[in-house]
Amino acid sequence: MTTGVETFFRSRWVSRPDGVRELEPSHLPAGFRAAAVATGSKPSGRLDVGVLVCDHDEATSTALFTTNAVAGAPVQVSRRAQLDRLRAVVVNAGNANVGTGARGIEVAEAMTAKVAGTIQVEPARVGVASTGVIAVQLERERILEGIAGALAGLSPDGGGDFSEAILTSDRGPKRACVEVGLSAGPVVVSVQCKGAGMISPAFATMLCFVETDAVVDAATLNRMVRGATARSFDRITVDGQLSTSDSLFAFASGASGCEVAPKGGDERLFAAALGALFRQLAVEIVADGEGTTRVARLAVHGPAASVEPVARAVGDSPLVKCALHGADPNWGRILQAAGQAGGDAALDLSIEGIPVVRRGTDLPLGDDERRQLDESMRASEVELALSIPGGDADAELFFCDLSEEYVRFNSEYTT
Amino acid sequence: MTTGVETFFRSRWVSRPDGVRELEPSHLPAGFRAAAVATGSKPSGRLDVGVLVCDHDEATSTALFTTNAVAGAPVQVSRRAQLDRLRAVVVNAGNANVGTGARGIEVAEAMTAKVAGTIQVEPARVGVASTGVIAVQLERERILEGIAGALAGLSPDGGGDFSEAILTSDRGPKRACVEVGLSAGPVVVSVQCKGAGMISPAFATMLCFVETDAVVDAATLNRMVRGATARSFDRITVDGQLSTSDSLFAFASGASGCEVAPKGGDERLFAAALGALFRQLAVEIVADGEGTTRVARLAVHGPAASVEPVARAVGDSPLVKCALHGADPNWGRILQAAGQAGGDAALDLSIEGIPVVRRGTDLPLGDDERRQLDESMRASEVELALSIPGGDADAELFFCDLSEEYVRFNSEYTT
Repeated sequence: MTTGVETFFRSRWVSRPDGVRELEPSHLPAGFRAAAVATGSKPSGRLDVGVLVCDHDEATSTALFTTNAVAGAPVQVSRRAQLDRLRAVVVNAGNANVGTGARGIEVAEAMTAKVAGTIQVEPARVGVASTGVIAVQLERERILEGIAGALAGLSPDGGGDFSEAILTSDRGPKRACVEVGLSAGPVVVSVQCKGAGMISPAFATMLCFVETDAVVDAATLNRMVRGATARSFDRITVDGQLSTSDSLFAFASGASGCEVAPKGGDERLFAAALGALFRQLAVEIVADGEGTTRVARLAVHGPAASVEPVARAVGDSPLVKCALHGADPNWGRILQAAGQAGGDAALDLSIEGIPVVRRGTDLPLGDDERRQLDESMRASEVELALSIPGGDADAELFFCDLSEEYVRFNSEYTT
Repeated sequence: MTTGVETFFRSRWVSRPDGVRELEPSHLPAGFRAAAVATGSKPSGRLDVGVLVCDHDEATSTALFTTNAVAGAPVQVSRRAQLDRLRAVVVNAGNANVGTGARGIEVAEAMTAKVAGTIQVEPARVGVASTGVIAVQLERERILEGIAGALAGLSPDGGGDFSEAILTSDRGPKRACVEVGLSAGPVVVSVQCKGAGMISPAFATMLCFVETDAVVDAATLNRMVRGATARSFDRITVDGQLSTSDSLFAFASGASGCEVAPKGGDERLFAAALGALFRQLAVEIVADGEGTTRVARLAVHGPAASVEPVARAVGDSPLVKCALHGADPNWGRILQAAGQAGGDAALDLSIEGIPVVRRGTDLPLGDDERRQLDESMRASEVELALSIPGGDADAELFFCDLSEEYVRFNSEYTT
């Protein structure tokens, strides 16, 4: 429970907010216990079923889910839960329980019932999330046995195992824990998330879990989570594919006794911490995109109706993503993708602050600029700015390159 | 000028129309001459500038262009031409002359003026098309010298060279020539097209040239070209990327003296021949998608508002395309992509006639079906049918797999 020398806020696009102290990333705030077991869903034999429980009955919560019309059984079951007063969430990785019909719903309900029975709350106070292969039935008995095992092992030190159990094609865990100094005293916020492919969240990320020991009413928690998500997980893409399973669960145990009073300085402090945590994790999801070697941030300025479709068209263009992979400052492909989304012909484009296109026309570059550009393109984080005449709206999008490794991974394995 | 043993209409999704006889694919109808030269735009040193001329002053024509907001200089110049009475078109490959500002427009105009001066027509009766790298200035003098060379070499036998000069990353020429028996006698139709990457045409293909010696008024020619395009080039995708340069030019010399009278049996015959030619060429563009090994046809049935976005979402999903590359009948990814486009959860899906999902739920497959499915997925052409409840509209889309070769090609080379 110490501040590492290396900060969690590693991306150039995220800074550690004022008044925030970094804790051991797998630490859980007071009032929470977690555990995970391996049931054999992952070929690696790693942890694949996790349970997170809040021990305070007055705990508040909130949740966000995918907008995909083909939502998984866990999303359907969780949507019907008491989302503002959840006490627990159960997760499995390796099988998403999507396209599994009535039987899939029954299994997801059995998963929440198993947890609810053990911690003695109504099943509607337990959320469920699954991630992995789509359109394959989940093995009911194996999963329920795994949940029983996890429930037996619940511990305040279980955050690390829990953050590993939720992973699929991720290179490693994505987690953080910080202390925020509120007016009434310090509170702790921890986050665990996962995601590497099928990433283009809308209102949620693949899977994300947030815990705090602060006292927060559910509406305030929801407002802060939505605000932080809008500037993080909603602004990323790996492959433009909206998952059927995106789910975010946030819990406030209240164990610290310190309140985040609505709409005051404490909400601002807490929201800033949450915003920075989500933003760093969102960049990490992109940086961990299947086969990814490089992350770009695209800032689009222009008419309100254009900035979002243009940002998505550029960030999801396989040609732009291949150029990024090859460290090629190929602005022709950026112009083409922007034009496809109706972006106007008179665009301005700069790469790392170097103007390369003005009013739709290629600008001549000096040798120094060309060298600087080539060097910038080889960095792990690249900054692009596109300006469309006729408006003052802004949109940003974090996206990654498209590599042969992405194709190999997604051709050779059923995910 | 003989019918080969192997038919041009090779795809399972195209049949040779009745009354159509296949001719040597590079043959041009009466009244046309063409030529091509190499000016060094292609690293291979192959032909890269082509000119096609119609020698009959009463010739009619029509043209279709990209809807990309960032249209190339040649598209802008051609749009202002007398599209219903063009006498020639000039093409270069290797540089698309896009994002090149006023200087690019001036070069495109100089290209048409050069041709016009030699064949003694107004510049507005010459079209221009360019394909290749975007946002690099075209070398004016080299191109104009090349055009002069091509003009000096114009020949009725130049169709083969012309069809090669328009290629970029294509594996080989895409061309055909057929004879259609009209009521007044036989007429000849020839087509040359190109395209392999940045393929998601809307109202045109990358580049396509059509010549006939039939007598056809420009309005009828336009109607037939639009109809054939709507069922061919508008229904394909390689990478979902709408080009800045898509252009289609069709010419009718009238040299045969045989008329395609509007709205009668002859229009039906001629339109059917054009339809089959375009459809086969469209499938060939997909089959020649950069790095492609396999083509799928997706037929979507359902509500009018859903069928097109669902077809595009599935056909442009990198996850679906990677699964197709791996011959993996991964219907989970098809459901996910359909759901992202709002496709309703209660979808039916069949692959090669084998139902795999009914009302959104995975169907159990017998060993024989599973074997049959695995075999079908390894074929060069795969058929998918998706049905969404609540409507009777139809959309089809031809798409290809996404391979490591596509990524390698588009990362390593500036195109």
